[in-house]
Amino acid sequence: MKFTHETFPQRIVFASGAAGQAVAAEVEALGRSRVMLIASDRETSSVDSIADRLPVVVRHVEVVAHVPVEVARRARAVAAEHDVDVLVSAGGGSTTGLAKAVALTTGLPIIAVPTTFAGSEATDVWGLTEGGTKTTGVDRLVLPASIVYDAGLLTSLPRDTAVASGLNAMAHCVDSMWGPRVDPLDQALAGEGIRALATGLAAAGGDSTSLEGIEQTLYGAYLGAVAFSSAGSGMHHKICHVLGGMFNLPHAQTHAVVLPHVLAFNAPNAADAERRIARAFEADSAAEGLAALRRVLDAPRALRDYGMPEDGIVASVAPILAAVPANNPTPVNAENLTELLHAAWAGEEPA
Amino acid sequence: MKFTHETFPQRIVFASGAAGQAVAAEVEALGRSRVMLIASDRETSSVDSIADRLPVVVRHVEVVAHVPVEVARRARAVAAEHDVDVLVSAGGGSTTGLAKAVALTTGLPIIAVPTTFAGSEATDVWGLTEGGTKTTGVDRLVLPASIVYDAGLLTSLPRDTAVASGLNAMAHCVDSMWGPRVDPLDQALAGEGIRALATGLAAAGGDSTSLEGIEQTLYGAYLGAVAFSSAGSGMHHKICHVLGGMFNLPHAQTHAVVLPHVLAFNAPNAADAERRIARAFEADSAAEGLAALRRVLDAPRALRDYGMPEDGIVASVAPILAAVPANNPTPVNAENLTELLHAAWAGEEPA
Repeated sequence: MKFTHETFPQRIVFASGAAGQAVAAEVEALGRSRVMLIASDRETSSVDSIADRLPVVVRHVEVVAHVPVEVARRARAVAAEHDVDVLVSAGGGSTTGLAKAVALTTGLPIIAVPTTFAGSEATDVWGLTEGGTKTTGVDRLVLPASIVYDAGLLTSLPRDTAVASGLNAMAHCVDSMWGPRVDPLDQALAGEGIRALATGLAAAGGDSTSLEGIEQTLYGAYLGAVAFSSAGSGMHHKICHVLGGMFNLPHAQTHAVVLPHVLAFNAPNAADAERRIARAFEADSAAEGLAALRRVLDAPRALRDYGMPEDGIVASVAPILAAVPANNPTPVNAENLTELLHAAWAGEEPA
Repeated sequence: MKFTHETFPQRIVFASGAAGQAVAAEVEALGRSRVMLIASDRETSSVDSIADRLPVVVRHVEVVAHVPVEVARRARAVAAEHDVDVLVSAGGGSTTGLAKAVALTTGLPIIAVPTTFAGSEATDVWGLTEGGTKTTGVDRLVLPASIVYDAGLLTSLPRDTAVASGLNAMAHCVDSMWGPRVDPLDQALAGEGIRALATGLAAAGGDSTSLEGIEQTLYGAYLGAVAFSSAGSGMHHKICHVLGGMFNLPHAQTHAVVLPHVLAFNAPNAADAERRIARAFEADSAAEGLAALRRVLDAPRALRDYGMPEDGIVASVAPILAAVPANNPTPVNAENLTELLHAAWAGEEPA
């Protein structure tokens, strides 16, 4: 047992149906009074009820995926112009990301109200895109001071989007179990996340308006983000990152397809992780737990369904081998990686 | 699901056999260079190896249980006189408590090196005693910036002291499950703590020099403290506090005796807690899991063995009833509380 784990200062508020009151209380607790509300205009209906209760001095709607630098610059200028003293973001990862870009240069505190299961609200990671290149970094300044989770804001999320976003959160949890900086606290949080996501996704998959299902999924997504940002990207995320970049594959579906293959690949050499994952699923094995959930959700199965060419398998082996962390439980080589990629491409059962 | 959970900023370092290097790294990471080393002279041998690697400007040995105010005043004066910029405490709860008393008025950061399973190093709670009365409070200033856990410093702890201190940590975990402010995160951390303590205490109870056993017990004690300070005192701690105060009972033994009775009392009305505790013990039920560990450890059984008079049962009912939190899973009344206390007094099996 040899590790260093860092816990971050953050208030996590679960308040289904009461985001407005909860955000207002957090603004007051911070002693702030000039709110910049960041939310794309797709979020208007759900955000109005929050805005009504806040001292909003400016509402900012220009939210763009991957936070282009010029979008960040305009948001920072708006914050300065209106002399705001707190940022309230309501939306998915791109919205939280824009608030982080403003916080990075201004030091303004963020109160994040997530409307997907992306998890960015629980990390100190920021990202900016310039000329097609994404730069990411880590800074304590961008960690939201408070998160307000209101399941009521997610009931209109389409069922397939919810499932894909939730399975992405599941991938954060599972891949944390053997991330390069993993420690027992990460594993404990990831295990609790898997437990919550298994319950929540099964419920939300059947009825995407289920408040209890969404609450559990939000809770699991929060835990997955905390564990993942502490443990770092494992083999699963390295594979998805390479494939996504090379073949422009859809993010969430790629994660959903690849995850069971990496789990089957690593589980035989990761006894503690295997036991924790199995226990979290309340299943006989980690693989069976994930498979059962995937059956219930009718999850994506084959990368070829999403546009990956068969010769992409050979092409992606070298960059993936170069990226997989050295501490991966099962040693990776060109042969076993090719087998894994082929199974994921074709939609075969994990080995 | 409706709760607010606050996570605290802290670095947790596990470094068995390497406390010196680890503390030096933490001092450097904080950018500090004038260490006040607080450790009673009972700790001399284990502390020398830490002191050797640090820029110690003063070593302070006056450590007294419950932190009398005059002891705190002298320590603060020493800190001021030597212009120290960081406090390193090495010892049990009283030593950590003295460092907290100094931090409370000076704002100096603390690096805590625990040598028991008390858990104070993971909380923002301070305590001072004046004229026989203990005052406690909560202040972010007293939360240690870093904790360095070195199991090697605890191998000389007598077996019975280790078991009693470890069972006290177990009580933190179990009582957190229904504390007045409990939330799912507290329960998840407490569950992981029970798992670690069950493993660690079974090992350390058999061989109190087992590094692995001590590591797991330290890890569980840390988790119990985090969960307990967030969830607040439940029924178990209220009972022990009243009995301890009225009859001057030994702290750890009182906790060890009372815990299974409170667990049996609450479990039937706390399904989620029961399931989490049972799972953590890998037992069929929470009660059976705790009972099995107590059998292995030959844990204390009866309060009458520690000086509680039989008529103390009647005398303590009213003050305990007044103290038990309103959210306790099983409603408490004079009758069922009397039964519980009688069983704990006589050493009967929990009902």
